[in-house]
Amino acid sequence: MKSKTKEILEAVSKGEMSVDDALLQIKTEPFVDIDYAKVDTHRKHRQGMPEVIYGAGKTPEQIVGIVKAMQDSGEEQILITRLSAERAEILKQSIDIKYFEEARIGFLGEAPKADGIGKIVVATGGTSDIPVAEEAAVTAECFGNEVVRLYDVGVAGIHRLMSHKEEIMSASVIIAIAGMEGALASVIGGLADAPVIAVPTSVGYGASFEGLSALLSMLNSCASGVSVVNIDNGFGAGYLASMINHMEVKA
Amino acid sequence: MKSKTKEILEAVSKGEMSVDDALLQIKTEPFVDIDYAKVDTHRKHRQGMPEVIYGAGKTPEQIVGIVKAMQDSGEEQILITRLSAERAEILKQSIDIKYFEEARIGFLGEAPKADGIGKIVVATGGTSDIPVAEEAAVTAECFGNEVVRLYDVGVAGIHRLMSHKEEIMSASVIIAIAGMEGALASVIGGLADAPVIAVPTSVGYGASFEGLSALLSMLNSCASGVSVVNIDNGFGAGYLASMINHMEVKA
Amino acid sequence: MKSKTKEILEAVSKGEMSVDDALLQIKTEPFVDIDYAKVDTHRKHRQGMPEVIYGAGKTPEQIVGIVKAMQDSGEEQILITRLSAERAEILKQSIDIKYFEEARIGFLGEAPKADGIGKIVVATGGTSDIPVAEEAAVTAECFGNEVVRLYDVGVAGIHRLMSHKEEIMSASVIIAIAGMEGALASVIGGLADAPVIAVPTSVGYGASFEGLSALLSMLNSCASGVSVVNIDNGFGAGYLASMINHMEVKA
Amino acid sequence: MKSKTKEILEAVSKGEMSVDDALLQIKTEPFVDIDYAKVDTHRKHRQGMPEVIYGAGKTPEQIVGIVKAMQDSGEEQILITRLSAERAEILKQSIDIKYFEEARIGFLGEAPKADGIGKIVVATGGTSDIPVAEEAAVTAECFGNEVVRLYDVGVAGIHRLMSHKEEIMSASVIIAIAGMEGALASVIGGLADAPVIAVPTSVGYGASFEGLSALLSMLNSCASGVSVVNIDNGFGAGYLASMINHMEVKA
Amino acid sequence: MKSKTKEILEAVSKGEMSVDDALLQIKTEPFVDIDYAKVDTHRKHRQGMPEVIYGAGKTPEQIVGIVKAMQDSGEEQILITRLSAERAEILKQSIDIKYFEEARIGFLGEAPKADGIGKIVVATGGTSDIPVAEEAAVTAECFGNEVVRLYDVGVAGIHRLMSHKEEIMSASVIIAIAGMEGALASVIGGLADAPVIAVPTSVGYGASFEGLSALLSMLNSCASGVSVVNIDNGFGAGYLASMINHMEVKA
Amino acid sequence: MKSKTKEILEAVSKGEMSVDDALLQIKTEPFVDIDYAKVDTHRKHRQGMPEVIYGAGKTPEQIVGIVKAMQDSGEEQILITRLSAERAEILKQSIDIKYFEEARIGFLGEAPKADGIGKIVVATGGTSDIPVAEEAAVTAECFGNEVVRLYDVGVAGIHRLMSHKEEIMSASVIIAIAGMEGALASVIGGLADAPVIAVPTSVGYGASFEGLSALLSMLNSCASGVSVVNIDNGFGAGYLASMINHMEVKA
Amino acid sequence: MKSKTKEILEAVSKGEMSVDDALLQIKTEPFVDIDYAKVDTHRKHRQGMPEVIYGAGKTPEQIVGIVKAMQDSGEEQILITRLSAERAEILKQSIDIKYFEEARIGFLGEAPKADGIGKIVVATGGTSDIPVAEEAAVTAECFGNEVVRLYDVGVAGIHRLMSHKEEIMSASVIIAIAGMEGALASVIGGLADAPVIAVPTSVGYGASFEGLSALLSMLNSCASGVSVVNIDNGFGAGYLASMINHMEVKA
Amino acid sequence: MKSKTKEILEAVSKGEMSVDDALLQIKTEPFVDIDYAKVDTHRKHRQGMPEVIYGAGKTPEQIVGIVKAMQDSGEEQILITRLSAERAEILKQSIDIKYFEEARIGFLGEAPKADGIGKIVVATGGTSDIPVAEEAAVTAECFGNEVVRLYDVGVAGIHRLMSHKEEIMSASVIIAIAGMEGALASVIGGLADAPVIAVPTSVGYGASFEGLSALLSMLNSCASGVSVVNIDNGFGAGYLASMINHMEVKA
Repeated sequence: MKSKTKEILEAVSKGEMSVDDALLQIKTEPFVDIDYAKVDTHRKHRQGMPEVIYGAGKTPEQIVGIVKAMQDSGEEQILITRLSAERAEILKQSIDIKYFEEARIGFLGEAPKADGIGKIVVATGGTSDIPVAEEAAVTAECFGNEVVRLYDVGVAGIHRLMSHKEEIMSASVIIAIAGMEGALASVIGGLADAPVIAVPTSVGYGASFEGLSALLSMLNSCASGVSVVNIDNGFGAGYLASMINHMEVKA
Repeated sequence: MKSKTKEILEAVSKGEMSVDDALLQIKTEPFVDIDYAKVDTHRKHRQGMPEVIYGAGKTPEQIVGIVKAMQDSGEEQILITRLSAERAEILKQSIDIKYFEEARIGFLGEAPKADGIGKIVVATGGTSDIPVAEEAAVTAECFGNEVVRLYDVGVAGIHRLMSHKEEIMSASVIIAIAGMEGALASVIGGLADAPVIAVPTSVGYGASFEGLSALLSMLNSCASGVSVVNIDNGFGAGYLASMINHMEVKA
Repeated sequence: MKSKTKEILEAVSKGEMSVDDALLQIKTEPFVDIDYAKVDTHRKHRQGMPEVIYGAGKTPEQIVGIVKAMQDSGEEQILITRLSAERAEILKQSIDIKYFEEARIGFLGEAPKADGIGKIVVATGGTSDIPVAEEAAVTAECFGNEVVRLYDVGVAGIHRLMSHKEEIMSASVIIAIAGMEGALASVIGGLADAPVIAVPTSVGYGASFEGLSALLSMLNSCASGVSVVNIDNGFGAGYLASMINHMEVKA
Repeated sequence: MKSKTKEILEAVSKGEMSVDDALLQIKTEPFVDIDYAKVDTHRKHRQGMPEVIYGAGKTPEQIVGIVKAMQDSGEEQILITRLSAERAEILKQSIDIKYFEEARIGFLGEAPKADGIGKIVVATGGTSDIPVAEEAAVTAECFGNEVVRLYDVGVAGIHRLMSHKEEIMSASVIIAIAGMEGALASVIGGLADAPVIAVPTSVGYGASFEGLSALLSMLNSCASGVSVVNIDNGFGAGYLASMINHMEVKA
Repeated sequence: MKSKTKEILEAVSKGEMSVDDALLQIKTEPFVDIDYAKVDTHRKHRQGMPEVIYGAGKTPEQIVGIVKAMQDSGEEQILITRLSAERAEILKQSIDIKYFEEARIGFLGEAPKADGIGKIVVATGGTSDIPVAEEAAVTAECFGNEVVRLYDVGVAGIHRLMSHKEEIMSASVIIAIAGMEGALASVIGGLADAPVIAVPTSVGYGASFEGLSALLSMLNSCASGVSVVNIDNGFGAGYLASMINHMEVKA
Repeated sequence: MKSKTKEILEAVSKGEMSVDDALLQIKTEPFVDIDYAKVDTHRKHRQGMPEVIYGAGKTPEQIVGIVKAMQDSGEEQILITRLSAERAEILKQSIDIKYFEEARIGFLGEAPKADGIGKIVVATGGTSDIPVAEEAAVTAECFGNEVVRLYDVGVAGIHRLMSHKEEIMSASVIIAIAGMEGALASVIGGLADAPVIAVPTSVGYGASFEGLSALLSMLNSCASGVSVVNIDNGFGAGYLASMINHMEVKA
Repeated sequence: MKSKTKEILEAVSKGEMSVDDALLQIKTEPFVDIDYAKVDTHRKHRQGMPEVIYGAGKTPEQIVGIVKAMQDSGEEQILITRLSAERAEILKQSIDIKYFEEARIGFLGEAPKADGIGKIVVATGGTSDIPVAEEAAVTAECFGNEVVRLYDVGVAGIHRLMSHKEEIMSASVIIAIAGMEGALASVIGGLADAPVIAVPTSVGYGASFEGLSALLSMLNSCASGVSVVNIDNGFGAGYLASMINHMEVKA
Repeated sequence: MKSKTKEILEAVSKGEMSVDDALLQIKTEPFVDIDYAKVDTHRKHRQGMPEVIYGAGKTPEQIVGIVKAMQDSGEEQILITRLSAERAEILKQSIDIKYFEEARIGFLGEAPKADGIGKIVVATGGTSDIPVAEEAAVTAECFGNEVVRLYDVGVAGIHRLMSHKEEIMSASVIIAIAGMEGALASVIGGLADAPVIAVPTSVGYGASFEGLSALLSMLNSCASGVSVVNIDNGFGAGYLASMINHMEVKA
């Protein structure tokens, strides 16, 4: 940004730009204002990565409006999260999206090819955690990562997890997804030498308190290298995993 | 109790006992009332097992009074829990107790010899859980059980636990003690084919919320055969483990 | 497992087995991977006991797939928990299950005959706790136990409980099920000389907070020999009670 | 108040009182303002009953100031709650109080003689609950009630409670005090036909959460006729019990 | 009960009753066991008062069964709480009940005439609290009390409450019902010289947390003479108020 | 009120008013009692401002009744909050209201013209917070304020907020509305030199716990000049903002 | 800021300022960086108002360092909050502060004379709330406001509050401070036509949960015009009250 | 691990190793058992990185024992966390550690030179968060990273943060540390294009609930790329940041 401001100042100094134009440029908003949303159009991020719309709590009309604004700004890949099948059907009438039902994700455009440091492992404690896992996995794939899915490897049958030790040991980043007691993150964190992103899920009943039990468990993990995102936040985990898996690109 | 009442009734019927004596006997309290405490003296339990005094919140004078009342009723073994070293010193001036410092247990008399079905394994996630574990282990020993201690085998280094798989597989009952994320109970529950008594501890900081995290984690264990006692309740776990380990005696 | 590994090593040593076959055998997964689930097929447990499928959060198709995988592995008895009547109807079209409506349990095969140490008493505080109680009772029966049901014996009318004192005194294991204030576990724990498995239920309103009140109450029970499972976890209680009631078989 | 206002209005009407005097009288504060406290001096209550000062969070100087203001208004009996032994010593230098150490109550003047409908039973679950019980009992005695103390009759040894069934059945009002699981209130509520005032105490550890467990348990009591006051609020229970025990005086 | 046992013993002593008959009588259950419920038939309570069935969580068939068992035991007045209009319609086909829709109470038989010490005031903070208030008021009426309803007198418009100061000052017992901040109980407790039963309601939104805010507020009331029942527990308040309002009958 | 009472007293003194009439006037209730509601009719507030009916938990009939009572007392502007579209349709059959759908507000009469000190800024973190924001904005407009809406300026894209720095800097009062992490209030509080009213919303999922996360965040704001209202309480914020924006009118 | 940037640009345009100087000026930090703190020196606020240092969690050395940095920037009035008497003594050795012990506030310089719209009333429920009230009152005074203190006017003795109705009615802003049930805010909110800033305090015991009860109560206030700050946050309330009380200055 | 087992099997096959030696090797524990701790000695991790001892809850004797066991296994760098100054003094008598007082870290040996992808920024909201920040920063430095410290840049004075935008934009990984409302993580997450590790601290009072408020706020961050560790867990953040900052080394 410094250079941009400096350029403007130099242009003003040289008389190539009027004071008012300079003021305008410095003040120009890096987003499009469509009243109910301020759509980022100059967002910081690596080239070729999709824009993201958080679909929950938005009407189909609002989503279409935001997509159009993004497309007008030249965005070619757009990922829409928390999109129910019903609302995806409505969107399909206006925009050309591919819909991943289990992940509740709509995607517009082509995903970049997988080019990260290594593979991202997405592991779940049980079968019921799969929708959250798919949100994470599809997100990571749409952001250019190769994903290995290890579902239903919860700690109550530790041999199921152990039989996949090699995938876990060789992963670049691991997303550990579990409800109930959420112990999966600790056990994986103890086995692996890679960052572990723990996702508590609202799977369970009674004293799982809608994911609170798994959340606390994961925050208290005594394994190093484990961090936690919000309950059921598969997208956040997939996005962060992709960011870490592309670290070398930046350096 | 039926037979006792029947005996009394028969004695009355035969004129061997007066109505008033019978009434008195039926009403007799099976405890000694020493004002600030009602000391059970006919307690239900297997022969030769100790009486228990919960030491917290009682003055040394109250404890001595209760011990005396028990001894007057013929009790020879008495176990006092939650007894600080300072208060143990005071007690030693009046009564002849052996003090287990780490377990904070005072014991009076001789422990019965170990005669349970098998061995009780007491496992902890970390070094800081040892005081609770000792409360459980010493309790179990005082109630006539052989105890195997497996300390610091938390799930973050799962190979430490795995290297003791044989002790775990051959245990009669297992007490799994852990703070922080409390995952130990689930992993042991998944490995073993024995009842697992989970004891959450208040070890940890921040979002461990004084043991709440471990407690919820253990209650949500997806392994079968796991049940939970109160935070830091080593005594309760040791007592219940002993009860289960002596099941055949009863049958 | 030691002997198994030793056998393999000896076979390799004697040239009876190739290195690669040995490696394969050591690595062989003791479960069948059907993608959305890893089905345990060599599970640790006493012979003749059923496998268990936790039905909640699984589609009927997933359940049928898991049942088939189990049957292919030679499993003859399968218990499916948390199965609604509607989904049971769908399952009946593919697999031959007996359905216990109040317990929400589907069972496939023949239950082993009752052969435990003694009887398991299942007691409830109120009429509304019966579904959880039936889950516990049917589970225990399917695992080969004789069950005595004592329903609606809550502590607010303590004489109702007292009139069943004999069943309680003679039980091998007791499952105490209650919502609201959850005091039943403490009172039974004080009367009986058997392990008490306490099951808090979500029955109640207001400050019962979906079972939290009963859960806390049971965890704080001042009666010895009481442990607790998750809110509404009838299955867990029935399974653990069966495990304890078959203790002598193991020794 | 109506009659007072009417009297004043009539006096004004008759010219016996000036408008300004009337205005003054209508506005006169029924308390003495000593800056850091507004001391009630016309409080609503039965004749001969003590005034009460909540001692916690007040300096000895403030308490003495309030006592003086009350005495100046003609008050002869004053009860000071939550008064530590140290601060009681300081107070004794200025005012003539009798100090009940276990109850942490200071009392000034003579208690009215016991004249209620019947007896108030104060029962506790354990020995550690006695300080709260004494606060309730001494309060009730200072307000003119006969009190029966039943300490350490918790539900884990239900026969201890049952042996005092007669006192419970014949009580006018019962105060049930317990920490941990707080079941005492429900069991007494189920036995007695009198109002039961339940007092949860902060006695316990771990999942007792400083009295929360007992509080929730008591609020969820399925016995009718039970109501609850704040954790450790012995005074509140004693005061309310006295109020109920003097109901007929009012009618 | 003492006299009953003594009578039996005397009869046995005199040979008027056999040992077995005596045993039977002593053991006879003071309730009818209809499997899913144990119906109290000798319940402790003043003559002429209704039996109560807690309707929530019971099927109409179960309720009818319990009513029949009560009627067979000679009970003439039965009050059924938490009864929805739909289920009341079903019940009306089998039993002759009067239905109070707002209170969700069904009543069978004639209410005793109002004969308490004085009047019971039922006050609410707002209009939305009326269903809980009606549950309390109808209960009190069915138990023989005169009830004064003061609805929508919340503290935010304190003059509305003040204008009814006379009813409040002259009440025998007051039931203060409020959601949201629950301040009504404290203000009424400060005005009145009668026991105040506070009922928090689940009325509100956001940080009212389904009645938790009002509950805590009422438990912390700094006014003396206030006790609390469970959230939305209008019945409990009405029953307890009636018990207190009939205190003199007992003495 | 003083002057009113003084006037009455003077009239009595002069014989212009009888004692009984005076008594009546002093006692006259400043509200209309329509049984299920006590309708304030002399409410304290600036002239020309609307009366408010909290619509939630009231039947359409009750609302109409209250509106009529207000109109009979001469009230010309009435604002009804928490009014669903369906119930608004029903109301329209009886009373002449304008309905703001997104704000769920019904309004009767003409809003006073905007005459406050300055403008009220209503800012939201996201698109999903708009309904709460509209409740605040429409309320403020109906109470005579000019409102500037800044929607979807959450802190995750801080430049969107910064580009509106001038509106924020020049606002008279700011209402900051956000769910999830609720950081908007702190950032705005740090930028602006005006009172900030923070409104947490229930927007979010998982660990947002229905607005609790945003609520706590806002209460802990380290920016000075920030205060908080209940979760989703757009009305309360709008009302308070209007009150502050009209401060000079009062002085 | 706009004009400042424009000025710089114009200077550059006219050749009066070099590009590098302009760049420097635009980037100049409006604070002094003393490593452990970034001291604001150009803070937005009305002229003549004090700077504020939050004293908790800072060493005396750090506070002195920050004070010096502020003084070097020309600041003449500095207010230090949460300053214990011990640490105030240490500070006095280096800087010339006046210390308000009950308020735990240190002040350096002269307070501006009171020049707000009207008076700020600071009211407390009890005597124990006075320290928080003094923090609010002294803050308001140091920011140039006249303060009226109404202490110990809690709702349990509503006449104490009512006797000060005139002060309350004529206040410009009211700060209502209470622990325990926190009802004071609602009652004052219902009486007054001024903004009410509610401050929950941690005064209380048991179910007051360190101020949580009062906090929830105040957030749920059904009186309009009430907003809430953090528990025990007297400073925040005093600062906001001053801001509101100086509203007309800004317009 | 596969290759190791394969090597052993091949050695056995070739007769180069006996069956018993093979068995021994396969079973050899990769840790040293010193009774109260199982010290990992073959831990998975990059070469040259320190071992870590969690110092809290361990006696100085236990720590020395663990250090000795690690040194005996050839470990040269050891980092000890949560070490108070007092206990560091005791340790210094036995082992040669460097002590970082503010970070409460003891370090033995030489830290590897900084060789990560880029710089790690450690930012705090306030001055009181510095101890947690130092724990993170010193950890990162001991693991071979260059660290940039940005302290006291909380969001309430957003320009302080903005003036360090360049450091933030160019960081490889960012650790955002804040108590109270915890908004720092969201704002930094919105500015930066690097993984953000959020650390809530227990700094604050009242409704900060010992860090719960900041924790929830951070978990709900609407900025992408943010994950969270336990309250006050500076070490965990520093360790994870180092792991991410060394990603390219692994690939």
